[in-house]
Amino acid sequence: MEVYGLLEKIRERKPLVHHITNWVTIYDCAAITRAIGALPVMAHAEEEAAEMAAISSALVLNIGTLTPSLVRAMVAAGKTANGKRIPVVLDAVGAGATEFRTGMAREIMSKVKLSVLKGNISEIGTLAGAKARTRGVEAAGVEGDLTTIAKSLAAREKTTVAITGKMDVVAAPGGETYYIENGHSLMAKVVGTGCMATSMIGAFCAVEKDSAKAAAAALSCFGIAGEIAAKKADAPMAFRLALIDSAYRLTRADVEKKSQVGVG
Amino acid sequence: MEVYGLLEKIRERKPLVHHITNWVTIYDCAAITRAIGALPVMAHAEEEAAEMAAISSALVLNIGTLTPSLVRAMVAAGKTANGKRIPVVLDAVGAGATEFRTGMAREIMSKVKLSVLKGNISEIGTLAGAKARTRGVEAAGVEGDLTTIAKSLAAREKTTVAITGKMDVVAAPGGETYYIENGHSLMAKVVGTGCMATSMIGAFCAVEKDSAKAAAAALSCFGIAGEIAAKKADAPMAFRLALIDSAYRLTRADVEKKSQVGVG
Amino acid sequence: MEVYGLLEKIRERKPLVHHITNWVTIYDCAAITRAIGALPVMAHAEEEAAEMAAISSALVLNIGTLTPSLVRAMVAAGKTANGKRIPVVLDAVGAGATEFRTGMAREIMSKVKLSVLKGNISEIGTLAGAKARTRGVEAAGVEGDLTTIAKSLAAREKTTVAITGKMDVVAAPGGETYYIENGHSLMAKVVGTGCMATSMIGAFCAVEKDSAKAAAAALSCFGIAGEIAAKKADAPMAFRLALIDSAYRLTRADVEKKSQVGVG
Repeated sequence: MEVYGLLEKIRERKPLVHHITNWVTIYDCAAITRAIGALPVMAHAEEEAAEMAAISSALVLNIGTLTPSLVRAMVAAGKTANGKRIPVVLDAVGAGATEFRTGMAREIMSKVKLSVLKGNISEIGTLAGAKARTRGVEAAGVEGDLTTIAKSLAAREKTTVAITGKMDVVAAPGGETYYIENGHSLMAKVVGTGCMATSMIGAFCAVEKDSAKAAAAALSCFGIAGEIAAKKADAPMAFRLALIDSAYRLTRADVEKKSQVGVG
Repeated sequence: MEVYGLLEKIRERKPLVHHITNWVTIYDCAAITRAIGALPVMAHAEEEAAEMAAISSALVLNIGTLTPSLVRAMVAAGKTANGKRIPVVLDAVGAGATEFRTGMAREIMSKVKLSVLKGNISEIGTLAGAKARTRGVEAAGVEGDLTTIAKSLAAREKTTVAITGKMDVVAAPGGETYYIENGHSLMAKVVGTGCMATSMIGAFCAVEKDSAKAAAAALSCFGIAGEIAAKKADAPMAFRLALIDSAYRLTRADVEKKSQVGVG
Repeated sequence: MEVYGLLEKIRERKPLVHHITNWVTIYDCAAITRAIGALPVMAHAEEEAAEMAAISSALVLNIGTLTPSLVRAMVAAGKTANGKRIPVVLDAVGAGATEFRTGMAREIMSKVKLSVLKGNISEIGTLAGAKARTRGVEAAGVEGDLTTIAKSLAAREKTTVAITGKMDVVAAPGGETYYIENGHSLMAKVVGTGCMATSMIGAFCAVEKDSAKAAAAALSCFGIAGEIAAKKADAPMAFRLALIDSAYRLTRADVEKKSQVGVG
């Protein structure tokens, strides 16, 4: 699968990627977006979100620290993006941990047509209707098989579904499935890696219409950056720095040699 | 005093530590919590705060960038935590700097039973009714003796009071007092160290019912991480990175060799 | 022009610099302020902003992630600062990208007397009434000459205008113009450098009444820190760390040898 070519397109076109995201990792979302060559912008006021979405090339929604006002801004921005065929990516952070969060995620999904719905296994499991357990923003188990959950939710919602974890699974609504085996165990120990992965998916969707391919390529590049970072750092903050800087430096050789994307 | 054993329990149990905190150091709060082995979650919507508190093992409240809505969320989450005997830690950031901030801190204290009330000497001095001066979020002097202020406030509020500074003082409502002489002068020059100390106290309270012991052990571990970091970095951002990563790497030998907790 | 002397005054006086800023770079704003020796404080509640402004030595307003509530807090804090002759600096982040943002920037300018209005060329161009294009928070072109735009806006608004870019231009309302040729190309690739520059301008205004001199000195020091950082780091996150730490370490020799401020 073409992976590096998409990263190259981002670096050439510098797409504007609008985020309505959380306050914990908002810097990280901006930093990774900028590091791979896109331009991040964050605008969450209900009065501005739609207007900013209208001039962007992708919209990233992340409910990590959601409020009703933020969700209204997300819906307004999402509808505008839909009307202009701008891809929308949703990270369902913490879905399953509280009823409020699960309900808000469902509300966004019901009002905005997503290009990619992304989460860990318990977040996606919850939204798929499987028995899943989320502890805060961490996956804590799900009943059922990853691929089955991803594919059924993708078919039901008519959107690409990306489940991140030790191996990432990306299921397109048409049935294609991608398995990404890049990454490093330290990524699970660093705050913000899940959010950064979503920002990368947003940037890749800005240059590739096939959203499953975009998501798979983004997750592969992010994982490769993690593999390179793990050679330089063995603790969370040094790893976070090396991860973003490795994403900034990714070369064609890095990507072509290391990318592990299987098609199911 | 047992210090390392508590850190070990955190690493084993991975308690969920719910934060309603400020927007300046929210990443740092999450990062240090994750670094020592606990799971941070941040949820500040008034509609969600109590529900998230209910599934957590500790609740950390930090008024660094408070608003009336955030304070309502803190009170709702705090009351739920109280009902379920989940420990609540309050960092009274900037109390004394404005009447608004002092008033809001008092309001939280009047409505929520705290396990630990933490601040620098002018913040705690203000809440104790001493003549204190706070410049923004920095201590700028207090009339009176640290131990006396801590002990009297602990007795009056029936909560553990932790005053951080060159030497940290932790006073239990029953009269026990701990003096922690770990740490490094660079910690006072880095944005976020006070907030991170509070997040650590929250995580330690999640595994130790005696909140004064928990606070003393947390501050000792944090100070030791600072001592180790100071050997690697001599400027704020490099020190911040080394501090969190040193907390991640703390070994039994580090803690047992360096911990300086005196009992008064 | 005296540059290092102002930095020395900041380190001696430790002025309190109140920020009402954005959620993406709020940590960076605090960190750079602290690194150069001032004390940052962030308080954005409408109920507290004016009270905190009243005890500060400078007020920094940054509309990076503005909402109507934040703008009301900015206006309240700004009016209080004006009444007490406390300098106010506005970073018009993203002006021109949306009508909402441009309108809010104009509203603040109409209600608060600014000491310094700062932005990139398309943000300032938009506010000056030139044909300018802003992509999110990035400059994307303007019709007209930098100096002419800066000088005419400075004269019209009776405020110092600072345009940052490859070369920074600072125009005083009285007609003096400063050209700062410090800095490094990596600064444009790192999220938060524009916001940090504004925080530094705020701190310098706290110790120097001539706001054009203050802004020029601040931008020169920040640029020098960038030049030093670029010798240590060649990727965004490592550069960000080195940039703030270089600002912390700036010596008289660094500043006197490298400062490039031309007077027009």
